[in-house]
Amino acid sequence: MTAEILAVGTELLMGQIANTNAQYISRRLAELGINVYFHTVVGDNALRLEETLKRALERSDIVITTGGLGPTMDDLTKETIAKALNRKLVLNEDILQYIRGFFEKRNRKMTEINAKQAYLPENSIVIPNNNGTAPGCIIEEGDKAVIMLPGPPKEMQPMFDETVFDYLRQKTGVILVSKMLKIFGMGESDVETRLIDLIKNQSNPTIAPYVSQSEVTIRVTARCKDHNEAMAMLTPVVNEIKSRLGVLVYSEDGESMEEVVLKLLKENGLVLATAESCTGGLLAGRITDIPGASEVFERGYVTYSNNAKVEDLGVSWGTLNRYGAVSRETALEMVNGLKQKTSAPAGVAITGIAGPGGGTKEKPVGLVFIAAYLKDTVVCKRLELTGNRERIRNDACLNALDMIRRLILGVEQQ
Amino acid sequence: MTAEILAVGTELLMGQIANTNAQYISRRLAELGINVYFHTVVGDNALRLEETLKRALERSDIVITTGGLGPTMDDLTKETIAKALNRKLVLNEDILQYIRGFFEKRNRKMTEINAKQAYLPENSIVIPNNNGTAPGCIIEEGDKAVIMLPGPPKEMQPMFDETVFDYLRQKTGVILVSKMLKIFGMGESDVETRLIDLIKNQSNPTIAPYVSQSEVTIRVTARCKDHNEAMAMLTPVVNEIKSRLGVLVYSEDGESMEEVVLKLLKENGLVLATAESCTGGLLAGRITDIPGASEVFERGYVTYSNNAKVEDLGVSWGTLNRYGAVSRETALEMVNGLKQKTSAPAGVAITGIAGPGGGTKEKPVGLVFIAAYLKDTVVCKRLELTGNRERIRNDACLNALDMIRRLILGVEQQ
Repeated sequence: MTAEILAVGTELLMGQIANTNAQYISRRLAELGINVYFHTVVGDNALRLEETLKRALERSDIVITTGGLGPTMDDLTKETIAKALNRKLVLNEDILQYIRGFFEKRNRKMTEINAKQAYLPENSIVIPNNNGTAPGCIIEEGDKAVIMLPGPPKEMQPMFDETVFDYLRQKTGVILVSKMLKIFGMGESDVETRLIDLIKNQSNPTIAPYVSQSEVTIRVTARCKDHNEAMAMLTPVVNEIKSRLGVLVYSEDGESMEEVVLKLLKENGLVLATAESCTGGLLAGRITDIPGASEVFERGYVTYSNNAKVEDLGVSWGTLNRYGAVSRETALEMVNGLKQKTSAPAGVAITGIAGPGGGTKEKPVGLVFIAAYLKDTVVCKRLELTGNRERIRNDACLNALDMIRRLILGVEQQ
Repeated sequence: MTAEILAVGTELLMGQIANTNAQYISRRLAELGINVYFHTVVGDNALRLEETLKRALERSDIVITTGGLGPTMDDLTKETIAKALNRKLVLNEDILQYIRGFFEKRNRKMTEINAKQAYLPENSIVIPNNNGTAPGCIIEEGDKAVIMLPGPPKEMQPMFDETVFDYLRQKTGVILVSKMLKIFGMGESDVETRLIDLIKNQSNPTIAPYVSQSEVTIRVTARCKDHNEAMAMLTPVVNEIKSRLGVLVYSEDGESMEEVVLKLLKENGLVLATAESCTGGLLAGRITDIPGASEVFERGYVTYSNNAKVEDLGVSWGTLNRYGAVSRETALEMVNGLKQKTSAPAGVAITGIAGPGGGTKEKPVGLVFIAAYLKDTVVCKRLELTGNRERIRNDACLNALDMIRRLILGVEQQ
């Protein structure tokens, strides 16, 4: 089965955004074993859209479009495709109701042009959109299908995952089951070296390493007819990888480091507190991004100024003057203050230089100290991180979480 | 003049990487006023590449390809295009020398297959590659041109900037200058309704609205021969939009809400402190994401538990018991505590229910109270936000920042 992806949007052709939707969809289609031979981007232009759609339908089984489903005049994907396939647009009352509710909930008035989004090509399958007003739809034409999705990734991705993926899986008749092993503390090439024989000899399950900011993910995917068969194929491979990488593997199911740490805290009846300087609330923000964080996260201090470090955490002016705010001594006083002030049995403090300014020869941008405690055990780590401000802040958070994880698991710090 | 971008690489069709090259090139072409009507991605397949190239050359003046210039068997862009345009590949001795030097400098031996990269289509213009071994080239065919660039962005971008941009500028003779008006507090369709006559009658400058999470951006672009002429064309349009939307426009140059608020704080010699419950550090994290935040951000409290609200901000147990943690009363006590505790002349406190759990009939998920102060002025706002946890937290932060912005500007709260 072949598919192609047709993105509609002048903002793509102007270079305002990258076509990350095509990447997302392609990756998921690869999981289903569906071949993708073309990506195309056209602007908000009916003629070029129609011409491209027709060519795509000639050469591929499935055409997935993204973008152009909004309420404005620019948005013409649905109208153009319906016309090209000789379908009328008909009002869907359920969707109209949903859109009206969407606006009411926000105390905003639905304007006339929003009603446009409630019209869909006749005899099409609705793809609900729980994060916006533009529903998607699937038009079947014999064995072929055109699948229309909105452009914003926050709407498109859940719609693909919740509706389109299953629709396509049923069409292909095979299932793919994956395990996502997440690894922190080792670079991609080192991970690959340790697994090279497994990667070279793969066929089914497939083993593919991916890398994103400081974390390596290994996706192990079995293609088969049912879930039991898949697990029988996956388990020995996953166990072999884990035996080679040990505690570097922090998750088998694609959970984020935050999720893993929250789960560990919960399982062990622990509560966490944080004190942040250079990460400025990012760590607390990421922890509390996870539903249910309130059960295990007690509070956080963003002690950005020295005053705050002294007043809120009891860091001494002597230490700040002698060793500086970015030092092992300050990190340890921050975490001690946190421990004394809160009732939390676990805590972590971060201080560092995120850049781009503020670095010196002795204390360069990227220098970060992290101190953590679990009950009576206190550990402290010095890191020299690289990359831009965002990367340094992100890596500091990941390291802080990994330190808490290792404390709870009772294994050595890296 | 029209151009299209043709990326070659199976890794794009597998979703392993996003087509950021097309974005980069498109943005630069937009500056030159060159219209881009199509992006296409094909795999490492000669047949599909040739077919796509021919169609591109029929409908566009310039075709820019990226990828497939490497030394391996997969890399077939140069060979395929030379064949399609009836050009022989001829050895370029200078390039061979350069490639040999490239390897010598790195103490590596040049293998036979690398010599392949020194062959270029006859009568083509060389595009030097100072960051890798694959040179690019320009083949002119009458008024049209095919420009081949390598795939790795670190090689492609400097080659585009150093050689291709000037080549194209000479061909066009015009430039484009844009203003990006960012709007908070009004939906896309309402904004469009207010500007509909301007949008309908646009030609030069062009006016285009875009939407991303709770914010609308309007790009106004003038095409002309120099920067002064551009500003003379842009200023009246920008002023007209601002006069219609007033203080809803928070930026003219595409800055984020955080950047605008930080700049206002700096200009007014103010310092900010934050107290967060449901956003859990996200607001502080976003503020401190911006370099130089330390000049205007003093500290933040993430008072996730009731204990923390009482101990750190002096919220009374009576208030928490009578009105609950998510209430106007608690938000006001949080902000008062913040004011008393810190020396910051500006502050903001957020409490709410981010979901997915924790909502009740009286206090549904999405209910958020934000209290803010600037010196002696205190304001408080009740919001019913919608969407998932991430969206609610994001919108709470945006609203909090907008309240501070309005306090500093001395305009009414929304």
